[in-house]
Amino acid sequence: MRAGHERVLRARFADAQFFWETDQKCRLADYLPKLAHVTYERRLGSYFDKVDRMRAIARWLAEQWFSSGITGGDVAGSDRAAELAKCDLVTEIRPEIVSFHFGLPDKNLLLRVKSTGAKVLSSATSVDEARWLEDQGCDAIIAQGFEAGGHRGMFLTEDVSTQVGTMALVPQVVDAVRVPVIAAGGIADARGILAAFALGAAAVQIGTAYLYCPEAQVSPRYRQALKGMRDNETAITNVFTGRPARAIVNRFMREVGPMSDVAPEFPLAASTVAPLRAKSEMAGSADFTPFWSGQAASLGRELPAAELTKQLAAEALENLKSLQTVACGA
Amino acid sequence: MRAGHERVLRARFADAQFFWETDQKCRLADYLPKLAHVTYERRLGSYFDKVDRMRAIARWLAEQWFSSGITGGDVAGSDRAAELAKCDLVTEIRPEIVSFHFGLPDKNLLLRVKSTGAKVLSSATSVDEARWLEDQGCDAIIAQGFEAGGHRGMFLTEDVSTQVGTMALVPQVVDAVRVPVIAAGGIADARGILAAFALGAAAVQIGTAYLYCPEAQVSPRYRQALKGMRDNETAITNVFTGRPARAIVNRFMREVGPMSDVAPEFPLAASTVAPLRAKSEMAGSADFTPFWSGQAASLGRELPAAELTKQLAAEALENLKSLQTVACGA
Repeated sequence: MRAGHERVLRARFADAQFFWETDQKCRLADYLPKLAHVTYERRLGSYFDKVDRMRAIARWLAEQWFSSGITGGDVAGSDRAAELAKCDLVTEIRPEIVSFHFGLPDKNLLLRVKSTGAKVLSSATSVDEARWLEDQGCDAIIAQGFEAGGHRGMFLTEDVSTQVGTMALVPQVVDAVRVPVIAAGGIADARGILAAFALGAAAVQIGTAYLYCPEAQVSPRYRQALKGMRDNETAITNVFTGRPARAIVNRFMREVGPMSDVAPEFPLAASTVAPLRAKSEMAGSADFTPFWSGQAASLGRELPAAELTKQLAAEALENLKSLQTVACGA
Repeated sequence: MRAGHERVLRARFADAQFFWETDQKCRLADYLPKLAHVTYERRLGSYFDKVDRMRAIARWLAEQWFSSGITGGDVAGSDRAAELAKCDLVTEIRPEIVSFHFGLPDKNLLLRVKSTGAKVLSSATSVDEARWLEDQGCDAIIAQGFEAGGHRGMFLTEDVSTQVGTMALVPQVVDAVRVPVIAAGGIADARGILAAFALGAAAVQIGTAYLYCPEAQVSPRYRQALKGMRDNETAITNVFTGRPARAIVNRFMREVGPMSDVAPEFPLAASTVAPLRAKSEMAGSADFTPFWSGQAASLGRELPAAELTKQLAAEALENLKSLQTVACGA
């Protein structure tokens, strides 16, 4: 690695701390439990009501579009209405962080969000996307590797075949941008966290592993599917929503996809699958139900979210010490 | 991570040392430069002539099959002849390690190889494959992530859509087998090496980064393509050989693939592409030439192989110290 790496790493950790505090000298050992606390408070505590309200608005709009018989081509305009509604809520709630997916909204909306003082994050699935996000003023970039569950944040390409794995993506994004990089994709335990830091990430974003938590609002069937998961039982598919997303392989993905050239445009595909899904779910089947999942689901544990976060943080530090001992002697 | 992780890690490092020495107490700091030395001697030094002889035999056989008009269905039998010829060479050369791809040869051949005293390695692209290889007596398993350049070692499935990224694959394979795990895929600098160790790997296998070395027998055009590479310019394709392999995207891959249902069976596809390739190469084009590459090619540096190896080893240790300092204070 380049000279002065330690300094750079140190600066990166310090930069990343705007997420929860202003103390520039906080050590990782102190910082991870704080992250746990803040994450818990923010994601799972008092914000729940308002987040639900945001979701309800988005859902209501999507239903309106579909029942009006509008097509994918009309969605851009209506999407704007949803974005405005959400932006009003951001102005009201004033969250410290606003994290986007699928790129960023238009410049005026982005400025409104930034003017609330919120730090803006978005996902990049390539170096190109990371550079674009930095140029648009993102305060940190989520490097979303191929392993990640749910929707790919890709927005400069629709070509799934060139999507990049976390191990290759993170260091190349770190080299390309000056803002902190948050690693995502295939990280579900302390080993992945430490690996992400080794690659140069300033933080990690963990998704699927938190679906095991009692707080997660997933169906018993979804929960059960995750528990029995193996590494090679997910695929990236566009058949559920029209956009590529990683889910546990099921009948619908096997028979129609996993990628299909004729899937309706996002987000209309979801509505076209809905009747099939409803009927099969009533019959006790998950043949048409998307169970979003990353490739490291099997590493999850059933713990309350706050406890899991603290445990992961403590274990990452413990692993770091072990690695040091093994590599350089006690 | 589980209790006693340090002990396990230490044991794993010790186990892995059969690759170059018997001293069970060697520290990583000593061990990486030795690995550099042995790798250099073994891979790039005195073995070159005999390895070339092996390759020539395999190539000659492939040409014979194709010019005889035999089809993919006939290949299994002829493949056996190539395997026997190679096995004779193993008996003669008695290498310390014999590393397979695409699973393992049949039990009798494998026994002949093992009876020479060679340690046997092979690649797994899933936990299923890793367990299978361990059951067949592999002494170490290469966990080949989705990011890796060249042929996928996959042998229990032909489904490319469920292939697993290195970040997710390595810890799940480490949990599933008792033998040492060698991480491969997307590792091209010291950050990747340290990340792989953090994931529980006992060693790493680096491919594309060594193609920058003056010792690598790649064409000037291939070398030039690697230098200009970005993270999202490769894809897994079967159009060049009939088996999925990661290469730099070119015209042939774009127009016919990257994956094609009608690609001739391995290894016959290579011969069908050969005339197109020869003609386009004479015209100065690489439209039909496979430039195998992993997703982290951009991280490579032009250094002699031995020097690169030593530098990577030293930097991995330096990075480990930096991470320790940043995380837990000086």
